[in-house]
Amino acid sequence: MHALIVHCHPEPASFNAVLTAVAKTTLRERGFSVDISDLYREGFDPCERPEHYPNRKNRDVFSPLGEQRHAFETNSLPEDVRREIARLEGADLVVFQFPIWWHSQPAILKGWFDRVFVNGGLYTSTMRYDRGYFRGRTALCSITTGAPEVAFGRDSRAGDIERILWSTHFSLHYMGFHVLPPFVAFGIQGHGYAYADEDSNNRRLIRYRETWMERLKGLDRNTPLTFPVWDDWDEDGRAKPVSTPSP
Amino acid sequence: MHALIVHCHPEPASFNAVLTAVAKTTLRERGFSVDISDLYREGFDPCERPEHYPNRKNRDVFSPLGEQRHAFETNSLPEDVRREIARLEGADLVVFQFPIWWHSQPAILKGWFDRVFVNGGLYTSTMRYDRGYFRGRTALCSITTGAPEVAFGRDSRAGDIERILWSTHFSLHYMGFHVLPPFVAFGIQGHGYAYADEDSNNRRLIRYRETWMERLKGLDRNTPLTFPVWDDWDEDGRAKPVSTPSP
Repeated sequence: MHALIVHCHPEPASFNAVLTAVAKTTLRERGFSVDISDLYREGFDPCERPEHYPNRKNRDVFSPLGEQRHAFETNSLPEDVRREIARLEGADLVVFQFPIWWHSQPAILKGWFDRVFVNGGLYTSTMRYDRGYFRGRTALCSITTGAPEVAFGRDSRAGDIERILWSTHFSLHYMGFHVLPPFVAFGIQGHGYAYADEDSNNRRLIRYRETWMERLKGLDRNTPLTFPVWDDWDEDGRAKPVSTPSP
Repeated sequence: MHALIVHCHPEPASFNAVLTAVAKTTLRERGFSVDISDLYREGFDPCERPEHYPNRKNRDVFSPLGEQRHAFETNSLPEDVRREIARLEGADLVVFQFPIWWHSQPAILKGWFDRVFVNGGLYTSTMRYDRGYFRGRTALCSITTGAPEVAFGRDSRAGDIERILWSTHFSLHYMGFHVLPPFVAFGIQGHGYAYADEDSNNRRLIRYRETWMERLKGLDRNTPLTFPVWDDWDEDGRAKPVSTPSP
């Protein structure tokens, strides 16, 4: 079994880095080989742009999806994208480790989705969702938040985690992954302000490390999140009426 | 009245560029002065990282929010961030023009949020939401999608627009903006595949240009989207129980 950790934080001493180190060790102890994409360290460019495609299909108008497909078909994808795809190819499990910034993933990780999940290569109009390229593989987001746990929830001040991660999760579902419920470390400090005193903060960090370790040991027992699949849609993509309407 | 259009597409001949041009013209005709942040053309760097902060508060550990606050307080914010803030300062209306990529905004726009909405400067723990820096100002997302309109909706194949834009909208609400309902141009081509023949496609594009123009002329009559505000939360940020529970 092989795992890829897509790690996304600019500070090597961040708590995100601690969680990635915990995942690497714990997964290796469980018999996984582990590879890490450290997006900041590797200087990953998150911007999809013409400069990535010297061998253009259309030199007049830059269509990101058209050029992705063409580059895939002509074996001229950008080197960093080829590297990320190679890392993904072997991975039974992909862990995304990132802080929540502005109610979603940091730009560098968003751009990893924009550039690495190549149109015409890793997905097509028929190779998506439960027929996706990565069907049978598993993905898991491990996130940190600045706000404390109490502030999260539907209509609460920090929003709810399900909405915050919906775009990321649905994109992984689109690619065929089984998406496990996220691991969330709330109220992570180092942001220039503090919700708690240092001791209680340290205790919380230690507890999150342990919870993350236990979570990784028990991944086999996790039930993936549920998303609609091809059988739920008519041929135009509309949700079919449910047979037993809710009251 | 002044408007800022934050434009986000790598291709100058894209339909996103057409919509931005329509907005510029229409808003000027309505008496607005209009400024445009063209993120791709200006080479905006979407990655929050230590290199942006030569005058560090903490040289050992890079805390993005801590350094944002310090840079604001010492008047040493990065030049591109200062430029974007200056553009925002005068804007009564901010229009975000972007394509939906992977169920959210492109990385370059996500990074604009990560870097420009400066902690300790444009928001603090008490200057947020309906007490936010931009209270009284209006924001509006104008988006394009690849998938056709029929495929959008709760549990439908392309997901629903409310979820797709939730993070972006809630972040704008966090900053104090009134967020208007989005303008959506569905099924925009140039992606290397087509849902429709060229004629019907051209008719749709012309219709969207006209609809967008009409929408911009009638912005005063738009009701902003509703998000929870300070009065809806207890002091910990939990949603207060609603007085009349729904059945």
